[in-house]
Amino acid sequence: MNLEEKQISSNTLFEGSFLNIHQDQILLPNGNQTQRVVVRHSGATCVLAVTDDERVVLVRQWRYAAGRALLEVPAGKLDAGEDPAECALRELAEETPYVAERVEYILKFYTAPGFCDEVIHLYRAVNIRPNSTLSPDQDEFVETVLLNREQARAAVENGEICDGKTLIALQYWFNE
Amino acid sequence: MNLEEKQISSNTLFEGSFLNIHQDQILLPNGNQTQRVVVRHSGATCVLAVTDDERVVLVRQWRYAAGRALLEVPAGKLDAGEDPAECALRELAEETPYVAERVEYILKFYTAPGFCDEVIHLYRAVNIRPNSTLSPDQDEFVETVLLNREQARAAVENGEICDGKTLIALQYWFNE
Repeated sequence: MNLEEKQISSNTLFEGSFLNIHQDQILLPNGNQTQRVVVRHSGATCVLAVTDDERVVLVRQWRYAAGRALLEVPAGKLDAGEDPAECALRELAEETPYVAERVEYILKFYTAPGFCDEVIHLYRAVNIRPNSTLSPDQDEFVETVLLNREQARAAVENGEICDGKTLIALQYWFNE
Repeated sequence: MNLEEKQISSNTLFEGSFLNIHQDQILLPNGNQTQRVVVRHSGATCVLAVTDDERVVLVRQWRYAAGRALLEVPAGKLDAGEDPAECALRELAEETPYVAERVEYILKFYTAPGFCDEVIHLYRAVNIRPNSTLSPDQDEFVETVLLNREQARAAVENGEICDGKTLIALQYWFNE
């Protein structure tokens, strides 16, 4: 079956530093036309970092869109042209009191492909150690939370952890 | 630590049928101000449906934002006031040649809380059977794909399955 939808025209609703929003007129496979709102995102990485004593490094931060604080794996948007692995190392160092020797690629995924092209690249941090030169962004408010496997499983089951990328990263860890 | 960010003002950039986009001026915990673009979404459900012969029911559809077809669990946006469980039953029936006797709640999660309030509710379909009265939306183009556990694991590992909600649903299935 031909599934492809083709752009006819595009109207920019918003241009920001990491998000652009368009309303496109498109052609459906059956020849009909419709409109789609598309959020164009610069992409992001997240990182599964586990300490020597088998505790996962999570961050609690306010999520304005959700109207609440969420408990998540360290993550952040890609800078222009940035390698996703470098971004993973950078975000771990910026958001937590840990740094990693290196990261290994696990997988990547679309977060909300119904309306957004954001791809998150998930990495596994290797050989993490405390970071003695922490210098957080003064406008970033992030708490570090360490959970062992049992605590992390409980937090998924009771809904305390309810962020998609974090569920994917933790399920990967649980199955290692 | 006080993490809360408070709205000072809100400017509507776009109002659509299931997406509203705002640019808000907000107050950070340290008293500084900044702006946030927020995508307000009506929410969605997705459904893990497995046949009697242990194959998961997936759908392949064009994702305009991603510029490609993706392989996903059946899913869809909540209608206004719709119960998420009813939505899961409806989407399974609309998008695939299967219906379920009922669904059981697994968990819910934010897809992209950095800029969007979308919550997806994940359900497990119970007692699915072929649907003899399929009447798909004429502007919806969806192929059904059935994969056993081994095939689904391979599709995750080789990147053919790269949708966040589908990874969460499949990892749940793999661990059942």
